[in-house]
Amino acid sequence: MNAEIIAVGSELLTPARVDTNSLYLTEELNALGVEVVAKAVVGDDRKRLAEAVRTAVSRSEIVITTGGLGSTEDDVTREAVADALGRKLVYHQEICDAIEARFRRLGRRMAQINKRQAWIIEGAEGLDNSEGTAPGQWIPLDERKVLLLLPGPPRELKPMFTRDCVPRLRKIVPPQVIRVRRFRVAGMPESDLDQLISPVYKRYSNPVTTVLAAPGDIQIHLRARSATNEEAERLLKEVGAQIEALLGDHIYSRDGQPLEAVVGRRLAVRGAWLAVAESCTGGLLAQRITAIPGASNYFKGGFLVYTDEMKRDLLGVSAALIEKETAVSKAVAEAMARGVRERTRADFAVAVTGEAGPESGSGRPVGTVWVAVLSPEGMRTEHRQWLGDRERIRILAAQQALDLLRRTLEHR
Amino acid sequence: MNAEIIAVGSELLTPARVDTNSLYLTEELNALGVEVVAKAVVGDDRKRLAEAVRTAVSRSEIVITTGGLGSTEDDVTREAVADALGRKLVYHQEICDAIEARFRRLGRRMAQINKRQAWIIEGAEGLDNSEGTAPGQWIPLDERKVLLLLPGPPRELKPMFTRDCVPRLRKIVPPQVIRVRRFRVAGMPESDLDQLISPVYKRYSNPVTTVLAAPGDIQIHLRARSATNEEAERLLKEVGAQIEALLGDHIYSRDGQPLEAVVGRRLAVRGAWLAVAESCTGGLLAQRITAIPGASNYFKGGFLVYTDEMKRDLLGVSAALIEKETAVSKAVAEAMARGVRERTRADFAVAVTGEAGPESGSGRPVGTVWVAVLSPEGMRTEHRQWLGDRERIRILAAQQALDLLRRTLEHR
Repeated sequence: MNAEIIAVGSELLTPARVDTNSLYLTEELNALGVEVVAKAVVGDDRKRLAEAVRTAVSRSEIVITTGGLGSTEDDVTREAVADALGRKLVYHQEICDAIEARFRRLGRRMAQINKRQAWIIEGAEGLDNSEGTAPGQWIPLDERKVLLLLPGPPRELKPMFTRDCVPRLRKIVPPQVIRVRRFRVAGMPESDLDQLISPVYKRYSNPVTTVLAAPGDIQIHLRARSATNEEAERLLKEVGAQIEALLGDHIYSRDGQPLEAVVGRRLAVRGAWLAVAESCTGGLLAQRITAIPGASNYFKGGFLVYTDEMKRDLLGVSAALIEKETAVSKAVAEAMARGVRERTRADFAVAVTGEAGPESGSGRPVGTVWVAVLSPEGMRTEHRQWLGDRERIRILAAQQALDLLRRTLEHR
Repeated sequence: MNAEIIAVGSELLTPARVDTNSLYLTEELNALGVEVVAKAVVGDDRKRLAEAVRTAVSRSEIVITTGGLGSTEDDVTREAVADALGRKLVYHQEICDAIEARFRRLGRRMAQINKRQAWIIEGAEGLDNSEGTAPGQWIPLDERKVLLLLPGPPRELKPMFTRDCVPRLRKIVPPQVIRVRRFRVAGMPESDLDQLISPVYKRYSNPVTTVLAAPGDIQIHLRARSATNEEAERLLKEVGAQIEALLGDHIYSRDGQPLEAVVGRRLAVRGAWLAVAESCTGGLLAQRITAIPGASNYFKGGFLVYTDEMKRDLLGVSAALIEKETAVSKAVAEAMARGVRERTRADFAVAVTGEAGPESGSGRPVGTVWVAVLSPEGMRTEHRQWLGDRERIRILAAQQALDLLRRTLEHR
């Protein structure tokens, strides 16, 4: 079954505001087995909104509008929906009385303008608003089709949806189980990954596969629908196993956890301590590691050695080595890792040095990065050359360092 | 003139992702004097997308799609737009060659699948993608009407829009002067700020004032429209001066620059060096400082002292002091700042220690933070107690430390 969500409000068409109600509604609808197939944002414009509602109800079984139910002239959802459906608005004195009572309880007099909220679409059911004045509306269009008008403020919308709409929707949505698997992959360009795995997942419409790419980090979401738990899990396993076979070691997470959490869990299980030395990433690596609650159980800290002087003074990297190899080199990355392990007595030391740009300080091209991991089993280094701006290179460098650490922890 | 934005991608119809490109585009379009009247999100569905494009071009002068231009089977924007306009797709060998050359520069072989990106709508102009492979497309529909296809990744979309689209749009948009002023404020709750300044800005419909709040950082945008530059600037000055008088020292930026850039500029002008010691922020502070290009001219580096052991071993904070005062205390913050200045010989040393949660390690309540700034003029410390989760407390702590440094640099 398909749903569409229409967010109403001119403020959602400014650079300052984004519609977040639809994220909550999508989560709830997916849990019922309903797909959200389109979302729209429309300003406080009766004609445009009527048009959007007409289009949505013509093609989807569940249509939800959010916002525009308040008391001001700007609030045009009721009128627009009446236009779209060709139905009348009916005044409900009992709703007006309830709004007035609410104001009284708050020790205030109801402004006349609030009466606007007592108009309900012909054939609709009013939905109580426990957190505000504007009632929602449940408008059955036919046996398996419904239009829902919800208030805009999240704290009014959420309880109304959970309490009054979910149970009603359950009666019209065919029962269905949904199971999700979330793989995460490091160190692979999206196009390479997709070329590898799309021949697999394209063969299946269930589970549905979505590939989400961020710099150095790709998520693969498999979503299976079925009548039973077992069948949904079987579908996930069937497709998931083929994807795992193709991606192998590139997969770092099978439950959606970020790389820093995966690494943290492995360190904690092993009872090992980690320390870092960062040059070009300037704290980004440590910041990710310490974003995980409980990081103090395996992360000691380390060194920010942004200048050559700091590499020498804080980590004991020799001036001659920097002179000879430049600060962005295998030898310096290794010397940094050795320096940090010596000074912190951590079991694992990670070092990153590189040129993030926009200009090169070391003479190496912008985008050159060396990472080193010194473990009880020895030293490993990796070199990369990336294109992109400063932010992207720093993100990729931190990701590469974490991923080398992850692979070192997995393959000891 | 009206614009509509259509974001393409099934991932934008999940609870995990929200379309943020449209916020950037709205800001840029507004700056040109163009209103955004509707936004839509459509999945990777050729038929639905074609329908959305057809509707949008029938009623708005500028229509922009974002996403769906990549190399995979999921990327259907090209085909859907061809369907919607009833135009052919034309293969451009030179675009394919450019993509292949880009891969070669990165030392990689181009996957065949990337050829899909060389198809351009008949009559369209390809727009160079300096940050990725998928070209954008500028499709004139008539003299004052255009359809624009942009790539989804923000780091590809933004430079393409600024560089190639804004100048072209200027030629079809009626001229209007728009001037913007961006104040940024640290260390003030949004409700306090709004109570203070809303009596001023509510009196003016031109400039339009927007208040954008993030943890510890509020932006106030004033947007004036006029026929002339002088009049727009006069309007900004009239309202801006009143806001400045009310907020005083809380304003750290009058041109929208972030706090780390403001601090960096002051250090660079003074020819002074900075170093840091971070406990609870775990690299977040340094990461922000080093995000600014040229930070190596004033930032030396510093210490990540996540455990008590590191505070002792790397910075010389005495075990007895930590025992007596706990690691989250004024005395330890000061000792950290002294330790880092001694070891780095920086002019300014900043130290942060606190409890980010979810559990307390020091015995102090979660949300307790101490920041210290040691400058040539002496030591300054500040204490805060915040509510919120780990991420929020870390963000607020880094912001507080930077802002104390900013005030120290301003008031010497």
